[in-house]
Amino acid sequence: MNEYRQTVRKWVKPEDLNQHSALFGGRVLQWLDEEAAIIAVAQLGTRSVVTRYMSEVNFVARAESGDLLQLDYRIVAFGRTSLTLSCSVENTVTGQEVLTLDRIVFVAVDENGQAYAHGQTEPTEGTERLRG
Amino acid sequence: MNEYRQTVRKWVKPEDLNQHSALFGGRVLQWLDEEAAIIAVAQLGTRSVVTRYMSEVNFVARAESGDLLQLDYRIVAFGRTSLTLSCSVENTVTGQEVLTLDRIVFVAVDENGQAYAHGQTEPTEGTERLRG
Amino acid sequence: MNEYRQTVRKWVKPEDLNQHSALFGGRVLQWLDEEAAIIAVAQLGTRSVVTRYMSEVNFVARAESGDLLQLDYRIVAFGRTSLTLSCSVENTVTGQEVLTLDRIVFVAVDENGQAYAHGQTEPTEGTERLRG
Amino acid sequence: MNEYRQTVRKWVKPEDLNQHSALFGGRVLQWLDEEAAIIAVAQLGTRSVVTRYMSEVNFVARAESGDLLQLDYRIVAFGRTSLTLSCSVENTVTGQEVLTLDRIVFVAVDENGQAYAHGQTEPTEGTERLRG
Amino acid sequence: MNEYRQTVRKWVKPEDLNQHSALFGGRVLQWLDEEAAIIAVAQLGTRSVVTRYMSEVNFVARAESGDLLQLDYRIVAFGRTSLTLSCSVENTVTGQEVLTLDRIVFVAVDENGQAYAHGQTEPTEGTERLRG
Amino acid sequence: MNEYRQTVRKWVKPEDLNQHSALFGGRVLQWLDEEAAIIAVAQLGTRSVVTRYMSEVNFVARAESGDLLQLDYRIVAFGRTSLTLSCSVENTVTGQEVLTLDRIVFVAVDENGQAYAHGQTEPTEGTERLRG
Repeated sequence: MNEYRQTVRKWVKPEDLNQHSALFGGRVLQWLDEEAAIIAVAQLGTRSVVTRYMSEVNFVARAESGDLLQLDYRIVAFGRTSLTLSCSVENTVTGQEVLTLDRIVFVAVDENGQAYAHGQTEPTEGTERLRG
Repeated sequence: MNEYRQTVRKWVKPEDLNQHSALFGGRVLQWLDEEAAIIAVAQLGTRSVVTRYMSEVNFVARAESGDLLQLDYRIVAFGRTSLTLSCSVENTVTGQEVLTLDRIVFVAVDENGQAYAHGQTEPTEGTERLRG
Repeated sequence: MNEYRQTVRKWVKPEDLNQHSALFGGRVLQWLDEEAAIIAVAQLGTRSVVTRYMSEVNFVARAESGDLLQLDYRIVAFGRTSLTLSCSVENTVTGQEVLTLDRIVFVAVDENGQAYAHGQTEPTEGTERLRG
Repeated sequence: MNEYRQTVRKWVKPEDLNQHSALFGGRVLQWLDEEAAIIAVAQLGTRSVVTRYMSEVNFVARAESGDLLQLDYRIVAFGRTSLTLSCSVENTVTGQEVLTLDRIVFVAVDENGQAYAHGQTEPTEGTERLRG
Repeated sequence: MNEYRQTVRKWVKPEDLNQHSALFGGRVLQWLDEEAAIIAVAQLGTRSVVTRYMSEVNFVARAESGDLLQLDYRIVAFGRTSLTLSCSVENTVTGQEVLTLDRIVFVAVDENGQAYAHGQTEPTEGTERLRG
Repeated sequence: MNEYRQTVRKWVKPEDLNQHSALFGGRVLQWLDEEAAIIAVAQLGTRSVVTRYMSEVNFVARAESGDLLQLDYRIVAFGRTSLTLSCSVENTVTGQEVLTLDRIVFVAVDENGQAYAHGQTEPTEGTERLRG
C-alpha cells in the first residue's frame, strides 16, 4: 500500500517552542495523533476511532516560530478492527527531519467502546466511506 | 491554474458547535484563514505573509461532533506581492456544502511589514521555496 | 437605528501576532463573530443564534503585544428572522483603523436549527429579552 | 466616581461548566481579572499594568451553556500608582447574581516592573490616554 | 491537619506573562482554583465539587518564561458539606513568594447542584474515596 | 532509585474525550510529556530541557468527564546529559490502568540547543537545584 500518502502541514507558533527554539515534544505528539486520527476516520468510514498504540519516537526537533512542519503519513496495514499508519515529520524550512514514527494504530469502536470489524482493506483518497 | 488543489481536513469538536449543532462562524473563519496562510507560505517561499482581504461568506453550516470538514483550496492568481486563493468547505459526513469563499488574499511582507515582490508566478506542490 | 452602539475591547496577546507584529486575520475574524453573536443574543432574546453571512473584509491590521483593539458595533437592520450588524475595528494605541465590516448577519434558530420569526424590531441596551 | 460604569458580556461555553452546570470558579476569576485589566489599561494610559490585589469572592454561580454573563465594573478609586475597581457579575438569562467583587487593584509598572505615578485622577470613557 | 500537604508545580509559558515578565493575575487564579478542585475531588470522594469561596489575594508575582511555580496546599478544615484549603505559591527559580491564599472553599454537590453532607473528616493521601 | 516517585493528577474535561468517552491519545501524550518535563527541570536544575525520546505506548484508556487521572513517575536513570523517567497512568475513579510508559528521556541543553553535562546523579524532592 506504499502508494497511499497523506501530507499535512502545521505552522509552528511561539507557544509550540521553548526558550531555545526547541519544539515541545508533547505538542508534536498531539499533532501526530490528531492528524492520524483524521486519516483513520476517512479510511475506516466511522467517526469513532481510538488510538490504541504508538511506537517509540526519537525527537530531533528544532524550529523557529513561523516554520512549517510537514507530516507525511503512509498506510502500513488494514487490520480486522484496526488501521496502522506511519509518519515522518520534516521541518520544511530547514529541510531537517524532526522525527520518524514507525506505527500508530487506530481501532474502530462502537458506542460501547468495543472494537468491531470495519470491513476495509484498501486505501481511499476520498471521504465517501463516511457517507456509507 | 485550475489544476492546483490543496485539501485540508478538520475534525469538528464539541467546542466548535453551539447547543443546536451549528458550527460557530468565527471558528470556521479562523480555520479558513490559518490553513490558507499555510498554503501561501509554501507558495510564496516566505514565512511572513499577512491576510489582506477576505471576500463575503455565506454560512450554510451544520455539523455534529466528530464530523470531518474538508477545505478545498485553489489558487486564483499570483499577484506581484500577493497570492489569491479560493476555498469551498464541505461536511464530508453529510455531503453538504458548508460555505464557498471566492477570494482570500495574502501579501508577502518584509520585516517592516511592507509588501514586496515575491517573484512567484506558478504553483508548486512542494515546500522547496522555503529553503531558497 | 444609528443611535445604538456597542463597544468591545480586546487585548492583543503575543499569540495573536505573527513575527512582524501583524495580527492574524483569522483571530480578528473570530473575535468579530463571537462578540457580534453576544450582541445578537441580547437583541433577539435567544441563546440560539447562528452566523449566516459576513461581508468582505479588508485587513489593514498592525499591532504590538499589549495593544487594545476597539470593536464598535452598530445595528444595521432587524429582519424577520435575522439581525444585521456592522463593525469598525480600531487599534486604540496607534489610533489606526484595523478594518471595517459592512454587514454580519445572525439568524435566530429553533432546536432543529430552523430560522424562526424573533419578533424584535428595535434595539435594547439591556438583556431583559433573555429573561422573557 | 459612581457615574463611571463599564459593562462586559461573556458567553458561557460547555468548557466553562462542570457536569452539573456549575461554572468553574477559576474561569470566572480569569475573566474578572482580564476584563478589569483592559479597563485599567485605558484608564491609566499604559499597556503595562499588573494585578496587585483581589478581595474575597463568594461564588453563587449557576449557568447553562449559552448563557450570557454580564460583568459590571465601577471605579472605586484612583491611587497614586494604582487603580481600584469593583465588579458585580450577573447571569442575564436567569437574572441571578453570580458574585460580587469589592475590590481589584491594578498598578502601572515601568519596564523594570516598578510601580510609577500614573498621574490620572478622573475616569475617561475613551481610549485617548493610550495615544498620549 | 497540618501534616497533610499537596504540592503541585506549574511551568510558566510566554502566554502567562505580560510584556514585563509579570504573571497575569487571572492565570494564577485559574491554576489555584483548578488544582485545589483536584484535591477536593480526591478528599471528598466525588467528581462534583464547586468553588464556593476564595479569600483575598495579594499578588507579588514576577517570573520569566520557563520558571516553575510551586503551589503548596494544606487542608484547613473539613466542613459538613465543604472542604477548606489554603495555598502558598512560590517561584522556585527565584525563591520568591508569589502569593498566599488563606482559604479556598469547595462544596460537594448532587446532580441538582445542592450541597450534601460528604461524610469525610480526615485527609487521605490516595484516591480510594473516588472508587467508594 | 526506585524510592523516588512523583505523582501528578489531571482532571478529564469534555474536550479530552471523543463521543464514546475514550480519551484522545494525543491529549494524554501531551500531559505525559509536559509533566515529565516539569520533573526534569527540577531534577536537572535547568529550565532548558528537551524531550529526546519516548518509548512505545499502549492505550487502554477509558474515562468520563470529571474523572481523575493519576500519573505516577519514577526516575529510571541519570545520564551524563540526560534524565530517563517512567510513568504509569491510572484512572482513579475506575481503578483501571490507562497506559504504562517505560521510558521518556530529557536532555539538558544550552542556549545553542546543545546537550551539556548536567552533573546530577541523585534524585531530589525539592527545587533547590533551580536556584543554584
